[in-house]
Amino acid sequence: MKLGMIGLGRMGANMAQRLMRGGHAIVGFDPQPAARKALEDKGAASAESLAALVAALPAPRALWLMVPAGDPTDASLDTLLPLLAAGDTVIDGGNSYYKDTQRRAKRFAEHGIAYVDSGTSGGIWGLDEGYSLMIGGDETAIERLRPVFETLAPAPDRGWARVGPVGAGHYTKMVHNGIEYGLMQAYAEGFSILKHKAEFALDLHRIAEIWRHGSVVRSWLLDLTADALQKNPEMAGIAPYVPDSGEGRWTVDEAIELNVPVPVIAQSLIERLRSRDKESFADKLLASMRNEFGGHAITKE
Amino acid sequence: MKLGMIGLGRMGANMAQRLMRGGHAIVGFDPQPAARKALEDKGAASAESLAALVAALPAPRALWLMVPAGDPTDASLDTLLPLLAAGDTVIDGGNSYYKDTQRRAKRFAEHGIAYVDSGTSGGIWGLDEGYSLMIGGDETAIERLRPVFETLAPAPDRGWARVGPVGAGHYTKMVHNGIEYGLMQAYAEGFSILKHKAEFALDLHRIAEIWRHGSVVRSWLLDLTADALQKNPEMAGIAPYVPDSGEGRWTVDEAIELNVPVPVIAQSLIERLRSRDKESFADKLLASMRNEFGGHAITKE
Repeated sequence: MKLGMIGLGRMGANMAQRLMRGGHAIVGFDPQPAARKALEDKGAASAESLAALVAALPAPRALWLMVPAGDPTDASLDTLLPLLAAGDTVIDGGNSYYKDTQRRAKRFAEHGIAYVDSGTSGGIWGLDEGYSLMIGGDETAIERLRPVFETLAPAPDRGWARVGPVGAGHYTKMVHNGIEYGLMQAYAEGFSILKHKAEFALDLHRIAEIWRHGSVVRSWLLDLTADALQKNPEMAGIAPYVPDSGEGRWTVDEAIELNVPVPVIAQSLIERLRSRDKESFADKLLASMRNEFGGHAITKE
Repeated sequence: MKLGMIGLGRMGANMAQRLMRGGHAIVGFDPQPAARKALEDKGAASAESLAALVAALPAPRALWLMVPAGDPTDASLDTLLPLLAAGDTVIDGGNSYYKDTQRRAKRFAEHGIAYVDSGTSGGIWGLDEGYSLMIGGDETAIERLRPVFETLAPAPDRGWARVGPVGAGHYTKMVHNGIEYGLMQAYAEGFSILKHKAEFALDLHRIAEIWRHGSVVRSWLLDLTADALQKNPEMAGIAPYVPDSGEGRWTVDEAIELNVPVPVIAQSLIERLRSRDKESFADKLLASMRNEFGGHAITKE
């Protein structure tokens, strides 16, 4: 089918490309001319504004948003709303907070516009391997988009499904990312132990390769870890600084709201905060307390 | 080659069977006659004692131990030592603590007997899918056993390797299991959030199936989790009680010894302890403290 793709960054551009490979017609929009040009070179049409994008699509329209969560998504939606008509469908494929999604869907529903949320996992590998899609929204709207989901997924009958009403897709993706934090932290800690065992001079890449085949800890994240350890076994040039982009925080907030204990997911988030806290006030205060009660020496800066 | 298999429980019997499928000749020993009989029915020879087992193997002998860690392994080794001769090789494929392995290897080396440790992962699925083998010990001894490792592994060139001197195999397997604790806990917490979100009435099995294809959290443990959620979506009849068999504790001990922070692996172990602490004295005391300073009500038993 013909689809508008809004946001041609790493994710949006790759998804547009996978859709074109699957025989769909894409009209792309991105505020960056270079991003539009790159997609045109791959065979897509492009539009210089959201108005031009909407005008280039046949009604009822389908527009896929692949824009950073929060204000950028709201800004795109504010511009889109007056351009669209009843019967159109907007799909937010980004990492929006599910409560934002519910609020936006309500607003669009008042104008007869369907709003679908598709939590999207797969990263830069999705172009070739397909994306895992957790979809929320009205069943009829989702059914109309079936050809799109079947093309984006790893296979038409695998890796995508409706999980519930609008918001449920982003909710599921949020928890997916919380789990991802925990998995990453567990591998990182384990390899750190192996790295510090000087006595055995362990080859971390070799061990990751062994584990990739037949072990209980085999996974796609382990495949990537093995690749990273082969390319850069000493992690040379990489600062021990781990950003987060919000989904871990939301997962922990949500768990607290539901009274669900998630110590490992929460701790994985805390570890990322700690990686950025190079001037830890708490550690300085702890050293001071030890000095106060026990006269223990303080390490000076 | 011809190999003695000592310990015909779930792991040992399956490994013996996989070796026979690969053309090796197995003589099995287990104190339980039923376990010996079961292996005989699959085409192996069996021996009624360790002495008979040793007598049935051509020199230089190769004996694979698949016995519970700790005292049962020491007991088997105490019996074996006087029966063996210089040039023989003992492989401990169980989950022994690596410092025990180093101690045992030293003792056997004094008699010219090679001692090899093979950390073995794959569980009950290893029979068909092959085992991931992390091997420590003398290179010559390991090379002589190459046909055995090539058959047990998922493929001759994958999923097995020497990782270092004796003890390094069990060390690597110990850390593997520590990682496994963290991965399991992260999935369990995430699905628990999804389960508690009544508003969306999420189908946990469906979500696990989506994630299995194309998502960042896809893994073999997720495959098993999806299977468990399909068979028993409400976890009916399963007590919230999680045993541990030692490797998580050793991993945390080792991390502390090396001054390596492993908060998530440690927390995963703590969560297992907590699952068994149904009469939490700490929780009772916390409720009492709240009552002491704030007059907050205590929930009575």
